[in-house]
Amino acid sequence: MLKILRINTRTREYRFEEPGQYAGLGGRALTSRVVLTEVPATCHPLSAQNKLIVAGGVLAGSTAANSGRSSVGAKSPLTGGIKESNVGGQFAHKLPRLGLQAIIFEDKPEADAPFVTVVVKKDSVEFQDAAPLLGLGTYAAHELVKASFGEKVVSAMVGPAGEQCLMAATIQFSDPDGRPSRSAGRGGMGAVLGSKRVKAIVLDPEAKDAVVMADPEKFKVARKRWVDILMNHPVTSQGLPTYGTAILVNIINEAGALPTKNFRSGRFEGAAKISGEAMTETIKARKGQYKHGCHTGCVIQCSQVYNDKNGEFLTTGFEYETIWGFGANILVDDLDDIALMDRTCDEAGMDTIEMANTIAMAMEAGLVPWGDSKGAIGLLKKVGTSDPLGRILGNGTVFTAQAFGVDRVPVVKRQALPAYDPRVVKGVGVTYSTTPMGADHTAGYAVCQNVLKVGGDVPSHGKAGQVEVSKNLQVATAAVDSLGLCLFVAFAVLDTPDALSVVADMVAAATGKPCSVDDIVNIGVNCLKDELAFNAAAGFTSKDDQLPDFFKNEPLPPHNLTWDFTAEEMQAAKV
Amino acid sequence: MLKILRINTRTREYRFEEPGQYAGLGGRALTSRVVLTEVPATCHPLSAQNKLIVAGGVLAGSTAANSGRSSVGAKSPLTGGIKESNVGGQFAHKLPRLGLQAIIFEDKPEADAPFVTVVVKKDSVEFQDAAPLLGLGTYAAHELVKASFGEKVVSAMVGPAGEQCLMAATIQFSDPDGRPSRSAGRGGMGAVLGSKRVKAIVLDPEAKDAVVMADPEKFKVARKRWVDILMNHPVTSQGLPTYGTAILVNIINEAGALPTKNFRSGRFEGAAKISGEAMTETIKARKGQYKHGCHTGCVIQCSQVYNDKNGEFLTTGFEYETIWGFGANILVDDLDDIALMDRTCDEAGMDTIEMANTIAMAMEAGLVPWGDSKGAIGLLKKVGTSDPLGRILGNGTVFTAQAFGVDRVPVVKRQALPAYDPRVVKGVGVTYSTTPMGADHTAGYAVCQNVLKVGGDVPSHGKAGQVEVSKNLQVATAAVDSLGLCLFVAFAVLDTPDALSVVADMVAAATGKPCSVDDIVNIGVNCLKDELAFNAAAGFTSKDDQLPDFFKNEPLPPHNLTWDFTAEEMQAAKV
Repeated sequence: MLKILRINTRTREYRFEEPGQYAGLGGRALTSRVVLTEVPATCHPLSAQNKLIVAGGVLAGSTAANSGRSSVGAKSPLTGGIKESNVGGQFAHKLPRLGLQAIIFEDKPEADAPFVTVVVKKDSVEFQDAAPLLGLGTYAAHELVKASFGEKVVSAMVGPAGEQCLMAATIQFSDPDGRPSRSAGRGGMGAVLGSKRVKAIVLDPEAKDAVVMADPEKFKVARKRWVDILMNHPVTSQGLPTYGTAILVNIINEAGALPTKNFRSGRFEGAAKISGEAMTETIKARKGQYKHGCHTGCVIQCSQVYNDKNGEFLTTGFEYETIWGFGANILVDDLDDIALMDRTCDEAGMDTIEMANTIAMAMEAGLVPWGDSKGAIGLLKKVGTSDPLGRILGNGTVFTAQAFGVDRVPVVKRQALPAYDPRVVKGVGVTYSTTPMGADHTAGYAVCQNVLKVGGDVPSHGKAGQVEVSKNLQVATAAVDSLGLCLFVAFAVLDTPDALSVVADMVAAATGKPCSVDDIVNIGVNCLKDELAFNAAAGFTSKDDQLPDFFKNEPLPPHNLTWDFTAEEMQAAKV
Repeated sequence: MLKILRINTRTREYRFEEPGQYAGLGGRALTSRVVLTEVPATCHPLSAQNKLIVAGGVLAGSTAANSGRSSVGAKSPLTGGIKESNVGGQFAHKLPRLGLQAIIFEDKPEADAPFVTVVVKKDSVEFQDAAPLLGLGTYAAHELVKASFGEKVVSAMVGPAGEQCLMAATIQFSDPDGRPSRSAGRGGMGAVLGSKRVKAIVLDPEAKDAVVMADPEKFKVARKRWVDILMNHPVTSQGLPTYGTAILVNIINEAGALPTKNFRSGRFEGAAKISGEAMTETIKARKGQYKHGCHTGCVIQCSQVYNDKNGEFLTTGFEYETIWGFGANILVDDLDDIALMDRTCDEAGMDTIEMANTIAMAMEAGLVPWGDSKGAIGLLKKVGTSDPLGRILGNGTVFTAQAFGVDRVPVVKRQALPAYDPRVVKGVGVTYSTTPMGADHTAGYAVCQNVLKVGGDVPSHGKAGQVEVSKNLQVATAAVDSLGLCLFVAFAVLDTPDALSVVADMVAAATGKPCSVDDIVNIGVNCLKDELAFNAAAGFTSKDDQLPDFFKNEPLPPHNLTWDFTAEEMQAAKV
């Protein structure tokens, strides 16, 4: 059975523990259970009492397609509640090869203690001076890591934003191409790791334990059907591989739900220029890659390699949310500038959704004009430097709004909204409002039923059915995140009758324990219950389950809808 | 009957209204009722939906001693809850002479609308361009106001901090000497007025309505006994007039409760140098004034005029809290430097308690060394300028701590703690925790019973009796604040059996309506109920009624006590 590595960042003691009370848990179910059990709900998120957990899912390391996602958990400095930040990259693929399900970082050194690189080996942990990496962009820092540990090394690191414990700070995970491009983005997980003076986590490339399935034959059958399911759905086999998530730009714009100029309109006149179609055309012309996976075993390949005008690498893992945020949201229609903003965020280790909304706040305040992409890039580049403006911006949307007296602040639980206007896609508005994570589209992606008509048809403009669809998706998502599967498998799962039983079969074959569809559902239910319990203990109530008032007071063109749910009406979306 | 003036800051419409549902209310009871009734609890505090109310008390304008306090109310940008900020100065004395009980500022203009000076006359309101006042220190700005309206003009204005809508921003009220020295300090009321683009409120000096008591003879008798009560108690007749509130420095230090170096010790070795005794000696030597009143009709005279080494005016309204905050709290023992910090805060319009804790956060972060008073002054002078660091600092303690990753943050409901360590003075800890205002010593000053042994003896180190004493004081304080009385009358009231009935007699004689001691108590109870109801609607729960964890985890020298109340144990302190 895989172990849990527990590291005290102050004393540098560590233990490889049997999972004990956490046996059988993986991914988000594990990180959230540890946070609920071990972190005092009222503690300061940057204090010694907080813990940061990185975990692979139940299927991590297996050959199941798209099973390599990692979960990062802690009490969030941004929301003050529990957080699971889900990320691709090679980490979860490598962890089981070290015999590990998860690593828990505890306690914290003095504020002026040196930063360390934590090197995790099969039976030991080394703490190396991280001084050479400090202040560098993550790409340069990971090059240094590779110079020490080899090209294939797997790392997770904070950028300069995390070194400064800023609330928009990510942890950047290395991808199959050896780039630190995958962000555990949301909720300031980088600030928590930074507060513990950990610059980077490096997984020993020499550790190569075989990952053994309890019932290899049964697993083989199930995983084969699993690949078929993914390869037979048009979204996972055609839409996402061809256009990436940016396929949504035209779709959501057409639906009148693409938040434009800080959620003032649902249509952006420059949408076509920043669409997935435009992106793929550009990538092809510049000889990049429009099909690309974020981790070993991915068959969906929604990522890409985006080159600049000269054909040089510019960015990868360049998502719809980022394109929306640095595009329509701030009135920019230049895809190259948006790509540079994405790269800038990856370099400093900043969440693109949080930072895109932050730039909108800066534009509301007049720091740079709307649509000024060069000005926006200049602001992003301040984060992680000694400029106090960088400390304001790097702390995110609420913080920047407050610094400059802006009152139109699109957040729930202090976390910035993603790329679907909740007045029009009401199901995702229920998710933004009620998920324990703060505004988060991935927590219950009702865009499926509201707009894409995958997994059902719940008309997006009305209230009917939205609470139910959000709740079901929140449960399903929590299960998917706990198994370590990529959320995008849901497109195929929702439309394929036998998909959930195939997932249950894979889990049973991997673990050697019976697993039914109900068991899978219960993983999600229990995970959400843990998260809601933590938030309740931290002081959250139904009052926190609502959108800012301006969504109720301002109709959104072109459909001129407002948000019309009360917090009370949405409580049924919680397990 | 006095009227309420309602001003729309966007349309510039205004109405002089009969009090209607607010009839009979004054001061805090009035501001809190208006906020509860008219402000959506979940609105953004800087949005058009928030309102700012300035009110005189029930006894405002009368000849009752110490009845000239003003209440400023709104939803607080700092705490997110309801706020009444209580302030001296001439405003409440003048309001009834304009026929007014209160002024309500509603709505807000566009973010780039020009700032105005609102000139309130008996039957009209004028909106004057405030451009000449912008960016000036409040002393220079008030000189310009005096140049336009005469030496005796009464004003309330925001400084540069309020112009920038910063969360530590005060509204500065002019005192009897024509200085803008009296701060409606706590909770960012200046940010709310600034968000409405109001730079200054000027009360027409020509308005001189007689303030008529309903029963002048009865009032005369009661007010005479009232003065006797105040003049016969040693605290209000000797201690406060001679040494000001700074008399507490030595007392609280001796008790081991003077928070030192961001609440790391209860004793400060430099205490004697910043004590009330040292201050009075210095003032005498420099020919300042050690007895001074903040408003017409004050007989306690706890204020002072503090001159610099050259005998030139430096500051006034220089309180114990300020001396502690910029003294022991940041390891400074130079009274002149502390006085300059006080003046700097008054000039920019910043709350000294919030800013003192903010400077402690800056010292925790290493921006300037502990004890570096010149460095601290330099930081304070950045607030209100174009320097982004000023925007960080001016937003207060939580904000600055977050900007620099500091996790030892002494706040309740995001408002910084005053000058009594709650581990040692546990009664005031209950008040900090449970008052709807956020950490606030004035909301239920159990230092009386815990340390000064006024109004009873509740040993400060134990838990017994603390909840009850805090609750009783919270009720009494809410009543005092609603009548417009200075809180310091409480020292005498608590020790004088007939005092409350004398207060009831004054109210009855002033209003012409029966008033019993129970009625006075009910004013306090109802006011608190309003405030708690607003906060509940805004999402506050018992989880918000607690001190930061470090007070539980770190024993305070020299008594080595910790905070040992749970939030649940303290709920009985709420009405």
